[in-house]
Amino acid sequence: MIIVMHPDATEAEVALVVERLRSVGAEVSITTDDGRTVVHGSIETLLQDEAPWDSFPGVERVMPVLRGGRRVGREFKSDDSIVRVGSVQIGDGELCVIAGPCAVESRDQLITTAESVAQSGASILRGDAFKPRTSPYTFQGLGKAGLEILAEARDLTGLPFVAEVIDPRDVELVASYADMVRIGTRNMSNQALLCEVGRQPKPVLLKRGRAATVEEWIDAAEYVHSEGNPSIVLVERGVRGFDTSARNTLDLTAVPVAKKETHLPVMVDPSHAAGRRDIVGPLARAAVAVGADGVLIDVHPNPAAALVDGAQALLPSEFATLMDQLRAVAAAIR
Amino acid sequence: MIIVMHPDATEAEVALVVERLRSVGAEVSITTDDGRTVVHGSIETLLQDEAPWDSFPGVERVMPVLRGGRRVGREFKSDDSIVRVGSVQIGDGELCVIAGPCAVESRDQLITTAESVAQSGASILRGDAFKPRTSPYTFQGLGKAGLEILAEARDLTGLPFVAEVIDPRDVELVASYADMVRIGTRNMSNQALLCEVGRQPKPVLLKRGRAATVEEWIDAAEYVHSEGNPSIVLVERGVRGFDTSARNTLDLTAVPVAKKETHLPVMVDPSHAAGRRDIVGPLARAAVAVGADGVLIDVHPNPAAALVDGAQALLPSEFATLMDQLRAVAAAIR
Amino acid sequence: MIIVMHPDATEAEVALVVERLRSVGAEVSITTDDGRTVVHGSIETLLQDEAPWDSFPGVERVMPVLRGGRRVGREFKSDDSIVRVGSVQIGDGELCVIAGPCAVESRDQLITTAESVAQSGASILRGDAFKPRTSPYTFQGLGKAGLEILAEARDLTGLPFVAEVIDPRDVELVASYADMVRIGTRNMSNQALLCEVGRQPKPVLLKRGRAATVEEWIDAAEYVHSEGNPSIVLVERGVRGFDTSARNTLDLTAVPVAKKETHLPVMVDPSHAAGRRDIVGPLARAAVAVGADGVLIDVHPNPAAALVDGAQALLPSEFATLMDQLRAVAAAIR
Amino acid sequence: MIIVMHPDATEAEVALVVERLRSVGAEVSITTDDGRTVVHGSIETLLQDEAPWDSFPGVERVMPVLRGGRRVGREFKSDDSIVRVGSVQIGDGELCVIAGPCAVESRDQLITTAESVAQSGASILRGDAFKPRTSPYTFQGLGKAGLEILAEARDLTGLPFVAEVIDPRDVELVASYADMVRIGTRNMSNQALLCEVGRQPKPVLLKRGRAATVEEWIDAAEYVHSEGNPSIVLVERGVRGFDTSARNTLDLTAVPVAKKETHLPVMVDPSHAAGRRDIVGPLARAAVAVGADGVLIDVHPNPAAALVDGAQALLPSEFATLMDQLRAVAAAIR
Repeated sequence: MIIVMHPDATEAEVALVVERLRSVGAEVSITTDDGRTVVHGSIETLLQDEAPWDSFPGVERVMPVLRGGRRVGREFKSDDSIVRVGSVQIGDGELCVIAGPCAVESRDQLITTAESVAQSGASILRGDAFKPRTSPYTFQGLGKAGLEILAEARDLTGLPFVAEVIDPRDVELVASYADMVRIGTRNMSNQALLCEVGRQPKPVLLKRGRAATVEEWIDAAEYVHSEGNPSIVLVERGVRGFDTSARNTLDLTAVPVAKKETHLPVMVDPSHAAGRRDIVGPLARAAVAVGADGVLIDVHPNPAAALVDGAQALLPSEFATLMDQLRAVAAAIR
Repeated sequence: MIIVMHPDATEAEVALVVERLRSVGAEVSITTDDGRTVVHGSIETLLQDEAPWDSFPGVERVMPVLRGGRRVGREFKSDDSIVRVGSVQIGDGELCVIAGPCAVESRDQLITTAESVAQSGASILRGDAFKPRTSPYTFQGLGKAGLEILAEARDLTGLPFVAEVIDPRDVELVASYADMVRIGTRNMSNQALLCEVGRQPKPVLLKRGRAATVEEWIDAAEYVHSEGNPSIVLVERGVRGFDTSARNTLDLTAVPVAKKETHLPVMVDPSHAAGRRDIVGPLARAAVAVGADGVLIDVHPNPAAALVDGAQALLPSEFATLMDQLRAVAAAIR
Repeated sequence: MIIVMHPDATEAEVALVVERLRSVGAEVSITTDDGRTVVHGSIETLLQDEAPWDSFPGVERVMPVLRGGRRVGREFKSDDSIVRVGSVQIGDGELCVIAGPCAVESRDQLITTAESVAQSGASILRGDAFKPRTSPYTFQGLGKAGLEILAEARDLTGLPFVAEVIDPRDVELVASYADMVRIGTRNMSNQALLCEVGRQPKPVLLKRGRAATVEEWIDAAEYVHSEGNPSIVLVERGVRGFDTSARNTLDLTAVPVAKKETHLPVMVDPSHAAGRRDIVGPLARAAVAVGADGVLIDVHPNPAAALVDGAQALLPSEFATLMDQLRAVAAAIR
Repeated sequence: MIIVMHPDATEAEVALVVERLRSVGAEVSITTDDGRTVVHGSIETLLQDEAPWDSFPGVERVMPVLRGGRRVGREFKSDDSIVRVGSVQIGDGELCVIAGPCAVESRDQLITTAESVAQSGASILRGDAFKPRTSPYTFQGLGKAGLEILAEARDLTGLPFVAEVIDPRDVELVASYADMVRIGTRNMSNQALLCEVGRQPKPVLLKRGRAATVEEWIDAAEYVHSEGNPSIVLVERGVRGFDTSARNTLDLTAVPVAKKETHLPVMVDPSHAAGRRDIVGPLARAAVAVGADGVLIDVHPNPAAALVDGAQALLPSEFATLMDQLRAVAAAIR
């Protein structure tokens, strides 16, 4: 950690900073720069979070040297982690495609979609039984009945499934049915929920918050890992931006950055990023080309009748075409 | 609702939209514009959320005429709501100042601060017993013991207190001690928590999410109201921006906008917006001048020893000076 | 255009809006929605920019039906435009790669780089003689001497070259040497410069402004076109975002959106978006996969000695490897 | 400057960095932190811009200790600068209000407005003769004829006036009429224009770019100063954000930050930030309360007939009321 003192900081103020650094075990050295005293302490992240260095008298600026110290970080584990979901592996070099409707609306809707995406080569089925919605007066999901339909679709197709959980009190229920639990973008910084999914054994799909930096997203993964569950897959799904031509600004830069900082698999959800069907295909191809371990695609047999996010769902036939394109791009960059 | 069809939409596609609108009770009229058919339907928000109009074949763009239909909206209740917290009123035209440390760290720290802010004229004490933190390895709050210290401070000073709740399973506990419960910025879109605080009677302080539009913030308040609790105070606390000179970009524009859209009181938290002590005073004065019903100010007897957010906390003496300035600005704009 | 009146707008206020719309030739129809009068006028963009509809008394909201009316728009010309730069074509379905150093620093540096990128298969050489810089005290480019070196490199390699122009008084000079002139991100909304490059015949490479919406970027292209020059290539190069892991947030969503809205070719500059060498390759592959007509890549024979933007430049050997990858991705999506 | 090496950087790589630092006169010291070598060099900004430290082999991260070295900075001149515009002073502790229409549309419109704002107590008249517009097909200003009308209004009212310049070739013309020249938000990073206004003697009103950090805005002022003109006033006018309830996100945090970093006066333009008349008043009051040296207010005798930005202009009577409020707030914070 580097602590830059004000040009008019007193010797006593410098001494206080040095003393406190030493009291927590840091080696300290001092240099000067343009009339400022610069204190260099050798101890990092944990320390800096506990002492509010920038509120010490005479301190102008504090600069951490490293983030460090995270179990999900490359420094903790240098080789890529592979996450198992039922019989499927994410992060093993093969493209993983998770597909299905945004929400489970009925048995027919789900089974039809599941059979079609399985036939096109999807690896995992998606479909939520609990939906977080902007307005309290809209469809909120089928709950337990939805989970039962998903389980039936798994039996019929052989595809494991992932479902969202939005309340810590529902984690046990969702995890008892699903092969993988999902934390949505609205809940990326919901610590109670992160901790709860960290205390159960099913793998976790962790979406990036709409305004989360890559660092904060990785910190959220660390919450899950710190409770004992190392099976985490990160999902980039677009961040808040100023342009209104799509629902979110898909941040594909985050994919190679996150893969460099952590050993976790990273996937991309172009459907929720775009919010409009006509650009899901190009964005999915770009996600594969940028190096993502897979993509999540919304598919619905009848988008115009969908209760949630119909505007972004592909028809099963469009999905089949996209799968061919994604396989071609994946082969090209191998 | 206005639905603009593609220039090459077929008559059948227009007819499908018209038919669906009529089936839900809308009056429909049709105009044309630059070769496009424009369908105008008379029914608003609830409807539009249920039918994915933009996924109907031939639809180019959907434009809602109103948001409407919210209980927290001015159209539902035109006069300002006043929220009671113990013996204090928020939104009655008097400036309300909530002050105290970010986190309860010890009995001494809290009691000292509480007595000093009471003496300077604060109306409500703040101090959290449960802290959501970016890293799982940092101080997470004293929990129930913290609530007991807060209750003791209330007995000594007469100030009601507000405390954050971060887990739906803790709502009952926090509400049994606190005079007001707080939803933090990380949890603004945590529906399970919003619903839970909506089902108990204590007033709710609802911070704006870091990337939430004003509309989404008001929608979050609607979740609380829809469960039966109308005592809600909105808090602007800075949004995510690209400039790094402060922790967040304080969006004071949101104050008059939110007061126009809703009947709820609106407060501002300049301490968490700034993240640095030296500009808290100017931002607090601006918040009062822009028309906020009050401000939240972090105060700590020894910021350099604070376990959380010390860099932004004012000393008790600085807070006393600020209170004089805020009273002067409040008098000037009355 | 749709004009929504306030719920309490008077009949006279509605009549004023209707009268003004009719006075400019619009057909007008009126509907009601939730107690509001909604006025629908049939005339679009040009009109709406001239009358400040939202400042008419009694008006609550104005919603344009179309942008329309732009010569660079698909409605004006439905097939893809192909832009010729010397003997090279951009937008004809073949991948176009523009490569070279950010700035011309010396004859040796430029010639070495030009020969190497030509050998690897680049189509056009880049290298700036005039550099806009954040600080007035840093290297600002070689000026005319730089243009002469670029012309020499063209003679040696056969590659046409593109160079930035930052002052309307330099347009004639730069265009007399270069095969294509470039408007940088800092000058996307510099109208005097846009008009000046619109009045000369060399093709224009127009970078997106750091905070420009896709609509504003297209409007900037319209300025160039409106002065008589239709040879314009759009370049996405990252927008301002809140994450600091790269210099900008590359917005690949803008590529398919811009290609849908306009008939102009769209390229991507992953080097300036990233600002760091290690992720230029993945982003370039993603740009090709999302459907860009080409990419711009910074290449420098000795990045550690570069005077400008060395941190993002690839070595010639790295560029050669990237070219192979880009060709593979381009083939995969064809 | 602090240069953090990769954990696996070689001794030769460290030596190269050290040697280069010493070659430019820096004193160098070395520490280690968590296995990384950290090189500390004593020379700052100018140096760091010239050598691309982050592209040296083995370098992981570069952290400047200071920005420093700017003539507009507090370190160069510690006391507040006062800028004279005709007989008016900006930055002397008195509130300065610049008012008038966005654009000069006609003699009548301007003279009427000028007389009314003078009577209400404005110090300086605004009104543009050259308008940068998003679309090339909208009203672009009256040009020289507009400047003549402004000069006539000055003679009648005694108010000096400020007018925008958008082309370096027009600087001499505009400066020959106006008492102060204005650089608009679209041209904040237009270096050719910044340099040109820096080479003439009239004071400069420099608006912040829509996506400019406070640092970049100050760097733009440095361009003007570096050419010889120290009379610069900064104007905050809202930055690009994700919320759509106002045209821009007014960043009042930038005011105390800029006043701390530079010795220049700082003003605020709430009219262009808001883009809607109903919140201009609250934002103007907040600007005064946060410590701005003044505000710019759009005033128009007939907003519904304005050719530019009518939606945000106050009526003369509304402006008179606002002036009383601003004087009250200014008195309260003194």
